[in-house]
Amino acid sequence: MSVIAIRPATPADVGTILQFIRDLAEYEKSPNSVVATEANVHDAMFGERPVIESVIAEQDGKPVGFALFFHNYSTWTGWRGIYLEDLYVAPEARGSGTGKALLSHVAKLAIERGCARFEWAVLDWNEPAIGFYKKLGAKPMDEWTVMRLTGDALAKVAAG
Amino acid sequence: MSVIAIRPATPADVGTILQFIRDLAEYEKSPNSVVATEANVHDAMFGERPVIESVIAEQDGKPVGFALFFHNYSTWTGWRGIYLEDLYVAPEARGSGTGKALLSHVAKLAIERGCARFEWAVLDWNEPAIGFYKKLGAKPMDEWTVMRLTGDALAKVAAG
Repeated sequence: MSVIAIRPATPADVGTILQFIRDLAEYEKSPNSVVATEANVHDAMFGERPVIESVIAEQDGKPVGFALFFHNYSTWTGWRGIYLEDLYVAPEARGSGTGKALLSHVAKLAIERGCARFEWAVLDWNEPAIGFYKKLGAKPMDEWTVMRLTGDALAKVAAG
Repeated sequence: MSVIAIRPATPADVGTILQFIRDLAEYEKSPNSVVATEANVHDAMFGERPVIESVIAEQDGKPVGFALFFHNYSTWTGWRGIYLEDLYVAPEARGSGTGKALLSHVAKLAIERGCARFEWAVLDWNEPAIGFYKKLGAKPMDEWTVMRLTGDALAKVAAG
């Protein structure tokens, strides 16, 4: 049995993280959606105004997964929460508890920082993930739908 | 016809904003969900590490609505987006273009800051809002569901 270790990402991990982001997009059936560069990720994580944080899961010293998150905010609680943007475990490490170890690590950070909520989004067809999350006690926010404005539509709304 | 003006919130608006937050929660059929205090909102907006921003809509100098938002992040785009946590227009000002003016103001900020995405969540039963958002060109992220971990379940996951 391999030992899973979770540690904060360092600038040296940016290439690995971008590869995980691409692997996750492929798993999510959107292999061409990733336009982010190493410079983007480095800047967002280690630049002057960091907006995201990441932790790496290692087995025997080899990165096998990651979690990437940022703070959101709830006007109901009046406090920050943690929003998990990405959670990924490489195929060879699945079923080893790595995903749960990553979630547990970020949940611990949420509690240390006084956050009442830890949230993330899941694709509706990803039943193994949904089952796993529900077993952990996460509740689906079924009654809400996220709306997204991009490109020409965004420009048109901005123009008033 | 009243003139609608949109301006950034100031510390003097915190009481009005918290009242709007409560009014919105009541509209959303969760009148008892708001535990946030004026101190929470002030700190999140004007404290040492601001995490949220707000703009106020005024008609004839009277606040009639607000938008409250923060930055999120997309690993696909490699860039920040804007997430609109709350949008509210008081009953007496509805149908006057105030909601659209607020959205347009925040969309303009999104473009000025290089954000590729402007997002928010809507309740599935709120058909007038959904119709309004779709007419503006916003796309429902139907295939995603947000999962939320709170309270004892969060503590249990954190405990590993």
